[in-house]
Amino acid sequence: MNVRHVPHEALCRFIEAAFVSQGLPVADAAQVAALMAEADLQGSDGHGVIRLPQYLKRLRAGGINKQPEIRIVHERAAMAVVDGDNGMGHLVVSRAVDIAIEKARSVGVAWVGTRHSNHAGPASLYARRPLQHNMLGLYFAVGSANHMPPWGGMEMLLSTNPIAAGIPAGDEPAVILDMATTVTAYGKVKAKATRGEQMPTGWMVDREGKPLLDPNRASEGFLLPIGQHKGYGLALIIGLLAGTLGGAAMGRDVIDFNADHVSVTNTGQAILVIDLAAFGDPAHFRQQVDRLVRDIRGSERLPGVERIWLPGEQSHEKRGRNAKLGIPMSSALFGELETLAAELGITSLTDEVAA
Amino acid sequence: MNVRHVPHEALCRFIEAAFVSQGLPVADAAQVAALMAEADLQGSDGHGVIRLPQYLKRLRAGGINKQPEIRIVHERAAMAVVDGDNGMGHLVVSRAVDIAIEKARSVGVAWVGTRHSNHAGPASLYARRPLQHNMLGLYFAVGSANHMPPWGGMEMLLSTNPIAAGIPAGDEPAVILDMATTVTAYGKVKAKATRGEQMPTGWMVDREGKPLLDPNRASEGFLLPIGQHKGYGLALIIGLLAGTLGGAAMGRDVIDFNADHVSVTNTGQAILVIDLAAFGDPAHFRQQVDRLVRDIRGSERLPGVERIWLPGEQSHEKRGRNAKLGIPMSSALFGELETLAAELGITSLTDEVAA
Repeated sequence: MNVRHVPHEALCRFIEAAFVSQGLPVADAAQVAALMAEADLQGSDGHGVIRLPQYLKRLRAGGINKQPEIRIVHERAAMAVVDGDNGMGHLVVSRAVDIAIEKARSVGVAWVGTRHSNHAGPASLYARRPLQHNMLGLYFAVGSANHMPPWGGMEMLLSTNPIAAGIPAGDEPAVILDMATTVTAYGKVKAKATRGEQMPTGWMVDREGKPLLDPNRASEGFLLPIGQHKGYGLALIIGLLAGTLGGAAMGRDVIDFNADHVSVTNTGQAILVIDLAAFGDPAHFRQQVDRLVRDIRGSERLPGVERIWLPGEQSHEKRGRNAKLGIPMSSALFGELETLAAELGITSLTDEVAA
Repeated sequence: MNVRHVPHEALCRFIEAAFVSQGLPVADAAQVAALMAEADLQGSDGHGVIRLPQYLKRLRAGGINKQPEIRIVHERAAMAVVDGDNGMGHLVVSRAVDIAIEKARSVGVAWVGTRHSNHAGPASLYARRPLQHNMLGLYFAVGSANHMPPWGGMEMLLSTNPIAAGIPAGDEPAVILDMATTVTAYGKVKAKATRGEQMPTGWMVDREGKPLLDPNRASEGFLLPIGQHKGYGLALIIGLLAGTLGGAAMGRDVIDFNADHVSVTNTGQAILVIDLAAFGDPAHFRQQVDRLVRDIRGSERLPGVERIWLPGEQSHEKRGRNAKLGIPMSSALFGELETLAAELGITSLTDEVAA
């Protein structure tokens, strides 16, 4: 596969211009672009610029409010519910996290939920946002399409509902967890289909409950939860917290964001922010995290295992590499973005890279 | 297997008397007894009266403080850290949950962590405690013995670190999740050994990374996390939140509560309580949960599946059945408790049942 390397800044400018061309206010376009490029930078490439055509399609179809009035609809000292007015999810969740950070600074801990939000990219972006404030973040989201039935069932009433956590360390990279409650993400199924590969047992089952291995038959089956009934339970709880509690969609109300570009999705997310300073000396906490990270990394390995990774460590390394060498992008995607630029009448990615 | 049925009240009285005989203040003994009997009532029999001999052994060995000064060491409006002074875990966590409920009532959401706590029984007991106050609970704990290595590793640096959630419904039973981050609990491995059965593939691996099926060889292997690296990440995050954040033990500092009856365990737990009223009308939330529960329960099933269960529904049914018919107890355990009563000089369980 041919790969192009695109500098992070060039990608930011490109995405921003694309959104501006569709009528998003410049500041909002810049904020969404920064988060999408950040996703690519850290290797979450299923949630970065690859989503741009889909977002633009929805913007053009009127399925996203370009000038939302994002506002607090419920509030107490340690919580809020933010109504995103069907704006871009990145804007809505960023606002929610910022509110949670402000509240946590004063009362120690804060929970902010969203309603009428939309797909917002990788969960880890938001879980890690509190870190620079000496805080930690825990993030829950209702996925943007139902791909999983309850355990024992066939109707896809649940999404991949992810949970993410960002825990600051001292000298070590932060511990960043970002996991779907399904064994695999639907994007990985699509990637297997693109590469003409079979899926391993355990990713999906068909409507007989038998392993489904052919990714081209994905629409005939369902994603499986991690730990069988446990992942089902976890996905349900995350959906209740991120969706139902904040007045957002859950279960049968979830709109398939990939197939339907018009209906208001009423997507829900929730962020919990905890101020380390409320629990004692943050420096001490960070030292303890460092010690644990090093104990784990340096601990005895199973035969054949080269390295024990901490959650988020691979993304951390990718981030460093991509910042230096540029973000790797398949020629196919690069070409698609060139065509898009021509359609939108914006500077091409080639020219942004050269700029 | 011969089974005796013990009324809930008789079991409460028996456990209380056992603790009083060892010098626990009557009110504390009653509180611990109620929680342990509650565990048995809901079918969490690995965490009920079966633990009594172990708790008593630790009390006698001086490994538990009989008259702890449980106190808040850090506090803000939406959080606290409770130092349990090495008291019985049930007392420490109950206090933590009550503080969180009070705080959530005022600021909407509260997080309370514990340090110098101990094994406290099933996580679900504490996650469901806020429900009667129109609140929901989320509970995290560092398990009381390390049984799981990091993914790819051999050193057992992690425990089964459970997560539990209690979400109130309307007419339906509450949704109660209580799950370890390992595929199975160590208690289930012991149960397989007792019954002379093999374990299924996926529960444990040996030091070569190969499936370990013989439960009698459990000490030669490790428990596996759900979803492979995902469960490892989740166990780590839960440990950081329930242990490290509150100043409790995590990683190499975790004492094996089953093998060591003397050392201060410095066990950590954390509870997050959310007041439904802060998010709108609690009745509306409860209706939405009912609707989702019914959608799930009534949804199409895979061939051969008789019923789709909601998390907590089986415990709910057991609770109803055991309240009516008595708590089922193996004759072996019943006999052990009879011997214990004679040793302690308390009323036998037989006499308590007859009372």
